[in-house]
Amino acid sequence: MRARDLAADFPVVRMDTDALDAARLLAEQDLPGLVVVDERGAPFTILPGTQVLRFAIPTYVQDDPRLAAVVDEVSADAICRALAGVPVRDLLPARPRELPVVDGSDTVLEIAAVIARTGVPLVAVVEHQQMLGVITLDALMDRIVTA
Amino acid sequence: MRARDLAADFPVVRMDTDALDAARLLAEQDLPGLVVVDERGAPFTILPGTQVLRFAIPTYVQDDPRLAAVVDEVSADAICRALAGVPVRDLLPARPRELPVVDGSDTVLEIAAVIARTGVPLVAVVEHQQMLGVITLDALMDRIVTA
Repeated sequence: MRARDLAADFPVVRMDTDALDAARLLAEQDLPGLVVVDERGAPFTILPGTQVLRFAIPTYVQDDPRLAAVVDEVSADAICRALAGVPVRDLLPARPRELPVVDGSDTVLEIAAVIARTGVPLVAVVEHQQMLGVITLDALMDRIVTA
Repeated sequence: MRARDLAADFPVVRMDTDALDAARLLAEQDLPGLVVVDERGAPFTILPGTQVLRFAIPTYVQDDPRLAAVVDEVSADAICRALAGVPVRDLLPARPRELPVVDGSDTVLEIAAVIARTGVPLVAVVEHQQMLGVITLDALMDRIVTA
């Protein structure tokens, strides 16, 4: 069993994807983040869903979340308006999180070691500079405990 | 729509749960971590799945994951053996990550503000000191973009 056999589809966005479309993708999937690919389709970083909310919710409300219940300018509608027309690029943190990459020929245990080292529960599988898909920690753990 | 209406079941472990059982729970679910509750059933922290691998894989292999393909002592079996009989307590990081808590009466937007502030894509819903369940970022995002 090699990385290429475990690579699963995963929704990707580009730097210029509309942030509201990214939010909709997050809402449709059971995922805490999205893979951001560069213009050649190579994996670049992860867009954490938390970063989408951080961008769209006023700082003074984040500092005191109880205000969200009483301030008019915080509504689902206002959040969507704040995201529409904004590129994903503008939502990324100042230091984008590294998305670990493994080769298609890497073994389950090499992938496990990469996840242990980086602390990121997701790796991108790349072969011949093409992204084949991703492997999540839970898919990998499944291979390990049922071996 | 209040937090108590959105609270979903989520697998929990205790400090003395066997780490191999925790690994099996992670493998069965589509989750990057588990909620750890204290002896009264109150949410205490998150056990990241990455931490389970970090505990079970020798440090020198984490430093050079290519070794995993060639070193005999790194196998799925060795990982399971390293976890069996070890309490979850021993796997937690030195500074356990705070699991944000919201009240059952909190609104969708208050929860969104808490997730934005903490950067943790999961909150526990507590009412009368009892954990009702959790709300994930993607469930919350679903409420926001379809509002």
